[in-house]
Amino acid sequence: MLPSYQSLVEGLRVLPGVGERTASKLAADILALPSASAERMISAIATARQRIGICQSCFGYSENAVCPLCSDDQRDAAMLCVVTSPLDVWSIERTDKYRGQYHVLGGVLSPVDGVGPSQLNLRELFERLATGIVSNVVFALPATPEAESTAFYIQNSVQRTIRFEQLAYGIPVGGALDYSDARTIGFAFDNRRAL
Amino acid sequence: MLPSYQSLVEGLRVLPGVGERTASKLAADILALPSASAERMISAIATARQRIGICQSCFGYSENAVCPLCSDDQRDAAMLCVVTSPLDVWSIERTDKYRGQYHVLGGVLSPVDGVGPSQLNLRELFERLATGIVSNVVFALPATPEAESTAFYIQNSVQRTIRFEQLAYGIPVGGALDYSDARTIGFAFDNRRAL
Repeated sequence: MLPSYQSLVEGLRVLPGVGERTASKLAADILALPSASAERMISAIATARQRIGICQSCFGYSENAVCPLCSDDQRDAAMLCVVTSPLDVWSIERTDKYRGQYHVLGGVLSPVDGVGPSQLNLRELFERLATGIVSNVVFALPATPEAESTAFYIQNSVQRTIRFEQLAYGIPVGGALDYSDARTIGFAFDNRRAL
Repeated sequence: MLPSYQSLVEGLRVLPGVGERTASKLAADILALPSASAERMISAIATARQRIGICQSCFGYSENAVCPLCSDDQRDAAMLCVVTSPLDVWSIERTDKYRGQYHVLGGVLSPVDGVGPSQLNLRELFERLATGIVSNVVFALPATPEAESTAFYIQNSVQRTIRFEQLAYGIPVGGALDYSDARTIGFAFDNRRAL
């Protein structure tokens, strides 16, 4: 193997979930790109790394100290949607269903993986909730036991009276029943609605 | 979505098999890298793109006009191993079973996908075989009908007497029978050997 190829494979292996074989395949794909595409890719990576940081208010992605969503005073400051990752903010924005603020936790509590409260943006969340501006918290977290524990932990750590909600679980739109697991169908059954 | 993030996603989508969602996940992973890893990754991509070209003799990866394997006169010039991709050369080198030369086709014939003889490095292969130096060709191609047709096509296009061979098909070492498909087991059965 060429040293420059070996370096490329090692350079790509730092990505989560990318092992030797995937990195080698990815390296070959990168070498096979037309020059224009490769240059655009390299400069897009460098530019994004340079410009994109974390919003100091919601911990979502931002090109400024405070992101456009947090600086937008047209948005409802009384509503706070709690998500795990910056990408989730954009997923929710795409639905056009929500006009409140966000808070990105950076993960969920998971003692097994060594993720405790101090690894998440929880202190900052509690500070935001303590100001008294937020009256509604919507949890938009994964449908996992860890995420449920995290929501439970947050709810129990807050002294003020706040309405806590979570996104509905159910059968995905367009999803067939036989592709959904029993727990999802069970939730959908419990939460069935009259027509 | 931030424009610089959007550009990053578009920059990554040029990779084969990478759609919007994978690109977005990859972009988030890249943004989450420590600075040192990100810088090493960017420079490894740029360096590899700059240095690695295609060997003018075997069409494998090379940092020079002719690759180290083709320039090594200790290797047996009468043996030629035909593979589809540059990575296959390294896979075979790792076995330490082969000391001949290589020829990278760049794919296999596949009329359905619009891959005809002119899309592969076949003219150059026939030129190499016409010199009379090569007496043995070993096909190390995927075990697919297209690869078999490609081997058949090559064998039928050559006028000189050359011994053509192909790698053995069979059950992978360490592989359980119930993980192998019927065709593989059938080949392994046909080619069983006395103990």
